Amino acid sequence: MTTTRATRYVFDFTEGGKDQKDLLGGKGANLAEMTKLGLPVPPGFTITTEACRAYLESARGGEAGSMPEGLAEEVSEHLASLEEAMGKRLGDAEDPLLVSVRSGAKFSMPGMMETVLNVGLNDESVQGLARQSDNPRSAWDSYRRLLQMFGRTVLGVDADLFEHALDELKVTRSVEHDVDLSAEDLEELVGTFKYVIAEHSDIGFPQDPRAQLDLAIAAVFDSWNTDRAAIYRRQERIPHGLGTAVNVCSMVFGNLGDDSGTGVAFTRDPASGAQGIYGDYLQNAQGEDVVAGIRNTVPLADLEQIDKASYDELLRIMQRLEEHYKDLCDIEFTVEHGKLWMLQTRVGKRTPGAAFRIAVQLVDQGLIDLDEALQRVTGAQLAQLMFPQFDPSAERELLTKGMNASPGAAVGRAAFDSATAVEWAEEGDKVILVRRETNPDDLSGMVAATGILTSRGGKTSHAAVVARGMGRTCVCGADDLDVDVRGGRFRTSDGVEVHEGEVISIDGTTGEVFRGEVPVKDSLVVRWFEGESELADEDDLVGAVARLMDHADQARRLGVRANADTPADAMRARRFGAEGIGLCRTEHMFLGDRRELVEHLILASDAKGQAKALDAFLPLQRADFVEILEAMDGLPVTIRLIDPPLHEFLPGFTELSMKVAVAEAAGKPNKRDVRMLTAVKRMHEENPMLGLRGVRLGIVIPGLFGMQARAILEAAAIRVKAGGDPRPEIMIPLVATVQELEHMKSDVDAVARTVEQETGTSVPYKVGSMIELPRAAVTADQIAEQAEFFSFGTNDLTQMTWGFSRDDVEAAFFSQYLERGIFGVSPFETLDRIGVGALIREAVERGRRTRPDLHLGICGEHGGDPDSIHFFEEVGLDYVSCSAFRVPVARLEAGRAVGDA
Amino acid sequence: MTTTRATRYVFDFTEGGKDQKDLLGGKGANLAEMTKLGLPVPPGFTITTEACRAYLESARGGEAGSMPEGLAEEVSEHLASLEEAMGKRLGDAEDPLLVSVRSGAKFSMPGMMETVLNVGLNDESVQGLARQSDNPRSAWDSYRRLLQMFGRTVLGVDADLFEHALDELKVTRSVEHDVDLSAEDLEELVGTFKYVIAEHSDIGFPQDPRAQLDLAIAAVFDSWNTDRAAIYRRQERIPHGLGTAVNVCSMVFGNLGDDSGTGVAFTRDPASGAQGIYGDYLQNAQGEDVVAGIRNTVPLADLEQIDKASYDELLRIMQRLEEHYKDLCDIEFTVEHGKLWMLQTRVGKRTPGAAFRIAVQLVDQGLIDLDEALQRVTGAQLAQLMFPQFDPSAERELLTKGMNASPGAAVGRAAFDSATAVEWAEEGDKVILVRRETNPDDLSGMVAATGILTSRGGKTSHAAVVARGMGRTCVCGADDLDVDVRGGRFRTSDGVEVHEGEVISIDGTTGEVFRGEVPVKDSLVVRWFEGESELADEDDLVGAVARLMDHADQARRLGVRANADTPADAMRARRFGAEGIGLCRTEHMFLGDRRELVEHLILASDAKGQAKALDAFLPLQRADFVEILEAMDGLPVTIRLIDPPLHEFLPGFTELSMKVAVAEAAGKPNKRDVRMLTAVKRMHEENPMLGLRGVRLGIVIPGLFGMQARAILEAAAIRVKAGGDPRPEIMIPLVATVQELEHMKSDVDAVARTVEQETGTSVPYKVGSMIELPRAAVTADQIAEQAEFFSFGTNDLTQMTWGFSRDDVEAAFFSQYLERGIFGVSPFETLDRIGVGALIREAVERGRRTRPDLHLGICGEHGGDPDSIHFFEEVGLDYVSCSAFRVPVARLEAGRAVGDA
Repeated sequence: MTTTRATRYVFDFTEGGKDQKDLLGGKGANLAEMTKLGLPVPPGFTITTEACRAYLESARGGEAGSMPEGLAEEVSEHLASLEEAMGKRLGDAEDPLLVSVRSGAKFSMPGMMETVLNVGLNDESVQGLARQSDNPRSAWDSYRRLLQMFGRTVLGVDADLFEHALDELKVTRSVEHDVDLSAEDLEELVGTFKYVIAEHSDIGFPQDPRAQLDLAIAAVFDSWNTDRAAIYRRQERIPHGLGTAVNVCSMVFGNLGDDSGTGVAFTRDPASGAQGIYGDYLQNAQGEDVVAGIRNTVPLADLEQIDKASYDELLRIMQRLEEHYKDLCDIEFTVEHGKLWMLQTRVGKRTPGAAFRIAVQLVDQGLIDLDEALQRVTGAQLAQLMFPQFDPSAERELLTKGMNASPGAAVGRAAFDSATAVEWAEEGDKVILVRRETNPDDLSGMVAATGILTSRGGKTSHAAVVARGMGRTCVCGADDLDVDVRGGRFRTSDGVEVHEGEVISIDGTTGEVFRGEVPVKDSLVVRWFEGESELADEDDLVGAVARLMDHADQARRLGVRANADTPADAMRARRFGAEGIGLCRTEHMFLGDRRELVEHLILASDAKGQAKALDAFLPLQRADFVEILEAMDGLPVTIRLIDPPLHEFLPGFTELSMKVAVAEAAGKPNKRDVRMLTAVKRMHEENPMLGLRGVRLGIVIPGLFGMQARAILEAAAIRVKAGGDPRPEIMIPLVATVQELEHMKSDVDAVARTVEQETGTSVPYKVGSMIELPRAAVTADQIAEQAEFFSFGTNDLTQMTWGFSRDDVEAAFFSQYLERGIFGVSPFETLDRIGVGALIREAVERGRRTRPDLHLGICGEHGGDPDSIHFFEEVGLDYVSCSAFRVPVARLEAGRAVGDA
Repeated sequence: MTTTRATRYVFDFTEGGKDQKDLLGGKGANLAEMTKLGLPVPPGFTITTEACRAYLESARGGEAGSMPEGLAEEVSEHLASLEEAMGKRLGDAEDPLLVSVRSGAKFSMPGMMETVLNVGLNDESVQGLARQSDNPRSAWDSYRRLLQMFGRTVLGVDADLFEHALDELKVTRSVEHDVDLSAEDLEELVGTFKYVIAEHSDIGFPQDPRAQLDLAIAAVFDSWNTDRAAIYRRQERIPHGLGTAVNVCSMVFGNLGDDSGTGVAFTRDPASGAQGIYGDYLQNAQGEDVVAGIRNTVPLADLEQIDKASYDELLRIMQRLEEHYKDLCDIEFTVEHGKLWMLQTRVGKRTPGAAFRIAVQLVDQGLIDLDEALQRVTGAQLAQLMFPQFDPSAERELLTKGMNASPGAAVGRAAFDSATAVEWAEEGDKVILVRRETNPDDLSGMVAATGILTSRGGKTSHAAVVARGMGRTCVCGADDLDVDVRGGRFRTSDGVEVHEGEVISIDGTTGEVFRGEVPVKDSLVVRWFEGESELADEDDLVGAVARLMDHADQARRLGVRANADTPADAMRARRFGAEGIGLCRTEHMFLGDRRELVEHLILASDAKGQAKALDAFLPLQRADFVEILEAMDGLPVTIRLIDPPLHEFLPGFTELSMKVAVAEAAGKPNKRDVRMLTAVKRMHEENPMLGLRGVRLGIVIPGLFGMQARAILEAAAIRVKAGGDPRPEIMIPLVATVQELEHMKSDVDAVARTVEQETGTSVPYKVGSMIELPRAAVTADQIAEQAEFFSFGTNDLTQMTWGFSRDDVEAAFFSQYLERGIFGVSPFETLDRIGVGALIREAVERGRRTRPDLHLGICGEHGGDPDSIHFFEEVGLDYVSCSAFRVPVARLEAGRAVGDA
């Protein structure tokens, strides 16, 4: 009996294609695609992600992994074909075939995983290679690179040991660059490296080429599960179960002399989207040298002079690729003795502006349609185009440039520690927190700051990750800066000093750091949204945005409303395309001059006093609502009755206690303060977030919600009489049980009847419920008996579902949660689909079961978050509501989300 | 064509039976049952609950209700039969048939709904009745009662108007009691009442007897939906949709002379369960006179002298009823001219002690089996038997007696306002809050008090409802007391004065109020649980409890564990029958002397300092656990790692701020205080319930959970070496996401390997998760990948699901919620099945889907609540855990719950 194995683990480059990223990884699929197109790809084969998954599965529970059955044989077959095609044998002593072993997952994880080049070299074959290539230096250099990479990656030897040995040799030889080392030097270095490996690894360096290959493959598989890779995946929300493919590719060498070289190219400018020749070339070098920045590259256009044949072929290939992929591609290539080889291609990253321009250009070129173009841009990119920008015409003093870790243009006083940042922020100042690097202790300062500047650390440093997670502008790794935290200053290498408290400006989009306040101005895109419609014709970026926004509006099913509390906000939101107000908070209407009325209400000794205080509010509130309803005439305006605990309108408990204690100790008690303190103490809550707020206020304070409802309905009556079309929707916050809503709805209905009688006007209105408590979600079928609409308050729902309050925990532990990958992103930024999302899903289902025409929206901050909007589309909400500024983002993403399915 | 109507709305008393309570209501079903048994029931018929539901349905949306089709005809048919049986016609001018119209719902709702007696009297038939009965006074009295009841109940006339007219007449005639009014007086009163009705109602009093009947039936239906009835149902958790039946019964009169009378009887003593003759009799009176307490009743035994024939027949009937119902019955009866009539019977209410005694007696009499006996008692009754009782042998000074509104024996200082009660309670004193009556402003005082005493209001007053809802002892309506809140004292009618601050004792089970401290002692039942096994033979109550506990233990599926934090608690719990510890909190192990170590931990400036502080804890914690594991040897001990925010172990923020501010203002700053304030300020949280606590501490403070795990596992190793059988289960609190648990479990596993190596002992342990956040419930399938057990923390789960913190909201608004019926009972007392319960159900289902052998328990306070235990049985948990004292209650209810199905 013979057993047949259904699963095949290895595919030749000639066998696959670009749509097989799940199986072959991104790199493997694109290598296969280029091979299929007849482009010059060095022969090779791909070991599938499925093999990786089987291997990793076998390694569960801490055991060493084992290769799945049959894989070794398949590798042997494909290796044999490769050897035949190349006319060389792997590691042959006379004329060795060398291969690279590279990871290649479905989603790019730059720098996270492993690569081993020059597999097949050993003490014998290095000699053969030296002879065959007639270039001993290159052969020994290749061998020492193999030892270095293999030692570190496969055998787990500390990379510093190799670097150290290399540096020592250079010192001994009095040379500055690696390239200045001779063949003999490198041969000596090989000896040293072998010694290092023998000393610091269990198994030593295998001379058997096939053993090298097998170990390298296993090492790439293992690299999928390193901590840093796992954390990266959590942050980027790449599923852990995918695994990586491994690409085994015959080596080509760009370092064989001046007729060789290596480079990267883009089919368009990734910064602007403009068509042309973009890229860099490095003569007589390998790819890793470009990355290491050992020598300066030249512009790609210079290749025309260096090697016209290769240059022309490259241009032809780039044209071909762009037409084939119908998108901007980036490319890695090597020239070996005048022969061009394609090592990689993929759809290239680009700036937000380029994304919009390219998408529209490709439509105009007839390569894609508008639906496809909409998928090529994101709300996050649009948001970046809408960030305020530093006025390009303003004068500025550039101090330095770091990494653009989190976008935005932030201006503020430099603070060098968290306590100072918090203190200044509380005083109302804008602050830029400046640190060498940040750690969890800096969190409160990061929360308080508008921008963060560090001199160390890259785009995955604590500062960068946390700033992106919280939406703060960040420039990191500005290593030209000498930050003196104790001294409260930093100094550039030019000797410019900036002291604590001085104003600086940082551009998170470019990484630039300026001295003083650089004026910030609205982006062109925002000015277009604001009504300067001619900009769509004058500026190609605005024109591209305009076309895609228009298409998104036609495509989308979700409505988009704005959260707006004032007439000015409402009007702006309308200009930005809001189709109503999804959340009009009423608490700001209790601030300012009116705070005194709140104090009267709270200090009133009886119902009569309370009623009097409420009566004083009525005309003020009514006037607020008349204006807002006018600004949104003809569109729905969802007004949330007062939500926060009333003691928020009083002085703080601790501050007032201190004041009274000090005054009393001095024998000068202030009667008003003492009386106020009694009230504040009575109303003090240990956990105000979980206290007397929302509908509970409406039930406990007779007439409070009634007064608000009356103000709304009287305002609506005034608008009706003025010929307007007011559409108020009265929203009850923090409902946990239908009985609460029942009480409130019957109060509102009673007020409505009274107002209609008094004004002789029929007033349209709806009554609905916030769904922001888990209990409201799981009893939504009951709540829908009373509610004509639901609005998900995802901020509170997230707080209650996770059991943490945003204010308290962001500073206390979110950074550690982000660093450890417990969150990929704060659940306050992007909706937690599996937790909070499950409750929303349930509420939608239960609510519609009771009332099929129930209107469903969301008014938490997630309403403007791209990823969350796709979720809201998926569960079938009717609209999202977000801040005015986010309305265009929501419109765009709502249009894109229709294509998810 | 004829249409047939399937639904029949009226049943004669001869047609139904006791099992038809759904359709006929409790009263109707039992009247039918007695009729079937051949007992002397006045003829009549019942209009079904179904008719009521149809009527109420037609009244939706504020319309007046209409009787369902065909009901009028059915009533006519049954009325005709009744007239034939009685030989009289309703309201006949010569010899009128009179009927009573009484409500009768499935569940008794005492005092909530309406009754109209003497229907059929009018200006003519009253004359006929006077002649026929030869008792004009009784006839006019009956007519004025009809006018009064009909006026109030059916026509909505203010009851005070009738009372006022009656009082005026008595003043005019200079008589004290109603019975002293003559026939002429009553005739005059009828005239006045008719005038009152004509003035204050739209339709006036109908002279047509059938119109009277129809309107009375509708009024009873309508009374189902009054606010007070709706609130009562919410409180008692009677479904709103049931509706009431209406019983139309021919009138019999107990007020026709000395050969007539009315009484109530019990087939056993409802206080002790002893068999005998129990009840009261009132000669020449109607039932309502007994209720009104106008004259004193005589013991039922006296009836033997008054009317031996009726007495003997009543005893025969009581015997018959008890054998038939196999339970204690209570009975209402009337004697009319020496003829006994049964007006009502039902299974009677009884005291907790009687319930246990009767159940066992009935088993011994062979009437019921032990399974049935178990259903006749409740955990709430057992809990009452376990309440500490005032030592009966101790001296005491009885001040007065009020209503026994909420059971228990409470001793404390009399406080007359909430602020004082709160202040004293904070100082550690026990307090009895004394008020005339309570209102929502008194809530904080009620929360702070151990007992509540009021001089006004009955068992449904604010004080009574709220005290029961919160488990506070309460005596209400002690109307002998003159409470002078301002003066800070109360006075009895005997002139005894008690001043604020004096100690009083109140017995919520008997309603007694004593001066001074009455010593409290354990009940016999508790002493038996504690190990005095001989009490089961010596005391019949203890014996009955013992038999039923034994049967419950045999019957139950649910395990019962205890929440216990100390070895002493653990041993007590074991004596009470706990099968392990379901929750051992570790935070008390950070108090007392060890508070200083916590301060070191918090104030440590670096990881080294933290590690040092933790090292100091290790041996202390280990010793704690050794003792607890020893006390529970052979049984599981679930230990929860530290949960509360660490700042709880530091001084309070506001207090310390005041202290420092005062010291600084005086120019005498205390360095230690200032340093501590910095730490307290840094760790201050706006909402500590939603802050850095539980597993978050474990993740943020390196080594904290590891130290606790090490202490547990080392303790277990010590116990193993000592030959013990330790079964520690390590429980991680406040898990929101499986990643948190993953980190902690891997830490614990690592510690375990170390401990096993160090001690050379194999240590059994499990790692599991609290499920106390909504997110944990909805992602329980993921959490179960890491957790070997779940324990539902229903306190926190209730807080997060409803979005309120127990501490903050009980005082702020729970009373209003209870009063308005938004809660029937606080969700912290009895599990909210449809909200919190839905999440538990989901977590159980998801958890078991991932891990079929997942062990599931509950350790919130609901673990000892009878109603909640039935829910936990229903959803299939493995065990409940509750305070040691509640363990017997949980065992009993777990046994009873098996019968729920």
